[in-house]
Amino acid sequence: MEFDLIHRHFATPFSALAQANGGTVIAGIGDDCAALRPAADHVLYVSTDTLVESVHFFQTDDPAVVGWKSLVSNLSDLAACGANPLGFTLNLSLPKLDEVWLAGFSSGLLEAASRYNCPLVGGDTTSAGTNVLKTISITVFGQATHTHTGFHRSLAQADDEIWVSGTPGLARLGLLLEYQRQGQLEKCCELSNLPRVEALLEAMPNDLQNSALQALQRPLPRLELGHGLHGIAHACLDLSDGLSGDLLHITKASKLRAVLSQRSLQALWLNKWPELTHHVDRETLLDTLVLTTLQGGDDFELCWTCKPGHRPPMVESGVVQSCVGQLETGEGVWLQCHPDSVPTPLQSQSYIHFSQGSQ
Amino acid sequence: MEFDLIHRHFATPFSALAQANGGTVIAGIGDDCAALRPAADHVLYVSTDTLVESVHFFQTDDPAVVGWKSLVSNLSDLAACGANPLGFTLNLSLPKLDEVWLAGFSSGLLEAASRYNCPLVGGDTTSAGTNVLKTISITVFGQATHTHTGFHRSLAQADDEIWVSGTPGLARLGLLLEYQRQGQLEKCCELSNLPRVEALLEAMPNDLQNSALQALQRPLPRLELGHGLHGIAHACLDLSDGLSGDLLHITKASKLRAVLSQRSLQALWLNKWPELTHHVDRETLLDTLVLTTLQGGDDFELCWTCKPGHRPPMVESGVVQSCVGQLETGEGVWLQCHPDSVPTPLQSQSYIHFSQGSQ
Repeated sequence: MEFDLIHRHFATPFSALAQANGGTVIAGIGDDCAALRPAADHVLYVSTDTLVESVHFFQTDDPAVVGWKSLVSNLSDLAACGANPLGFTLNLSLPKLDEVWLAGFSSGLLEAASRYNCPLVGGDTTSAGTNVLKTISITVFGQATHTHTGFHRSLAQADDEIWVSGTPGLARLGLLLEYQRQGQLEKCCELSNLPRVEALLEAMPNDLQNSALQALQRPLPRLELGHGLHGIAHACLDLSDGLSGDLLHITKASKLRAVLSQRSLQALWLNKWPELTHHVDRETLLDTLVLTTLQGGDDFELCWTCKPGHRPPMVESGVVQSCVGQLETGEGVWLQCHPDSVPTPLQSQSYIHFSQGSQ
Repeated sequence: MEFDLIHRHFATPFSALAQANGGTVIAGIGDDCAALRPAADHVLYVSTDTLVESVHFFQTDDPAVVGWKSLVSNLSDLAACGANPLGFTLNLSLPKLDEVWLAGFSSGLLEAASRYNCPLVGGDTTSAGTNVLKTISITVFGQATHTHTGFHRSLAQADDEIWVSGTPGLARLGLLLEYQRQGQLEKCCELSNLPRVEALLEAMPNDLQNSALQALQRPLPRLELGHGLHGIAHACLDLSDGLSGDLLHITKASKLRAVLSQRSLQALWLNKWPELTHHVDRETLLDTLVLTTLQGGDDFELCWTCKPGHRPPMVESGVVQSCVGQLETGEGVWLQCHPDSVPTPLQSQSYIHFSQGSQ
């Protein structure tokens, strides 16, 4: 079963891509090892993730979306390092043979692999014994030129600006829309403590709803942007746990404090949703939207720090880049509500408290 | 829990090793990606495997043995490619927090990583939802000089000799001893159809029993030998499914037939167990031993093909290297019982039949 499965769903559909990368992929599926030849003086980057059914995705999820996201989440790690993909390996542990799921998963995975030119170079499929849930492990390899010094989390400097790509939090709105569609919104809001979420979803224009669902189901790894940030960014990471949680990694590693501007975070949303300016509930809805940015993960947008006054890199994808705060001596992640006010420490509980108090 | 777990069992104990490899490991655990810098003009090799509890190892297995073997099985793939290890990633999916198991697993893994200078460069630990079994995925990276042409399975040539290292099948004897110790030998022999196995185990001298248990629990990746085979071997692989099954991969890829010499296979065992020459049941016991070589896996010995008359490479480990057959035009894997007899096709069923008939 195993050999057939791998061939039908992976080796065969992915072989053209591996062949198209013949200069780099010297040996792929079928030999003991995949052999990759990075160009001379290039650095190899590696990222790996495990997704477990019912923890990271659901049995009812479109398997093509699961396939797309499982590779993209790893490609996003490469983007955050300024690296370009070389290839990836896939380990699947399956409780039973589910051809429909496998075909869907494979198609979404292949779509992402093809779009980002990242060949599958090895892996295995194992029967999961008495386990009842699918487990997916992906390891992706990338490279960058040796002149690229890397974007380590410890390299942020005091007075650096904090930038983000896109509209972090959009995927969380997509998730809320999904929960609403399934009649489970109440349960979800208990979890995330988002105030006035039903009013928010109702007020969202159709195109924003579509953007949010797209961000949830088809997030894009910001590989081109990551490359454009060579020589500009000091520290960089991809947003997978919400801006406030992820920024903590940088502040801890660099021993600095991050001060986010609430005005700038609001501007991210007003830019995406201009009609909101005239909405009667504007302030409440903006509070909720800013909370999704701070808490909502899986957008796979980049967050980086750089010297003030740099020009954002030009990228073909035209992704919006916004300055949302700055680094200072100190520690932790703080929010400044108005340009003149004293920043408030942003632990998720205290911010929720603050936010609820401000309604 | 997750962060603590990784730190306690992996990041902390493995950090010295990563630091010792500072020239190659530019970034390891903690950043989005591991960054590895293979020397200029070197080829990167990748191998990955998933192990599921109750399928590939048992809850009752010593976790240090599971840790050792899970890395060694991947290192063995590098050895079969003539590559040296650069580093590895680890993905663990665990049904519950089992500190005792994790500490043991980590210690065995670290022992192998240290012995073979293979730093852990990334990974994750996830809670397995309602899954009841542990799942381990390991991806290992290696390199070789760019002058190394690789040992692809399709590169074997007619008239090549077939060589093996060590005594393939020894780990299967270790497994049989383990089953016997657990009172489950009968069940195991039904599975493998080995004749006279109890008489065999009883006749084994103590030092051979110890070697067999060692081969089962602490197999060694033949990295030095793999490197020594540069410029000598045409095709090479590591023995994980038994000599007859694994040789089929080479014969299929190279469109040749392999003819194994029963005398040479017997000589492997007489070399390891000289007292057997004088045993009253010598022929029957040798038949069973040859069957363990043909069917028994997980020795992680190497099997390679090369031009006749080459000198075996000198390796510090002093591992025995033996010619056990040759390649010819044709297909499949065959056994020649006597130098003058016509070879018999070796599908496992027919060989078992032959062997039972010869008792």
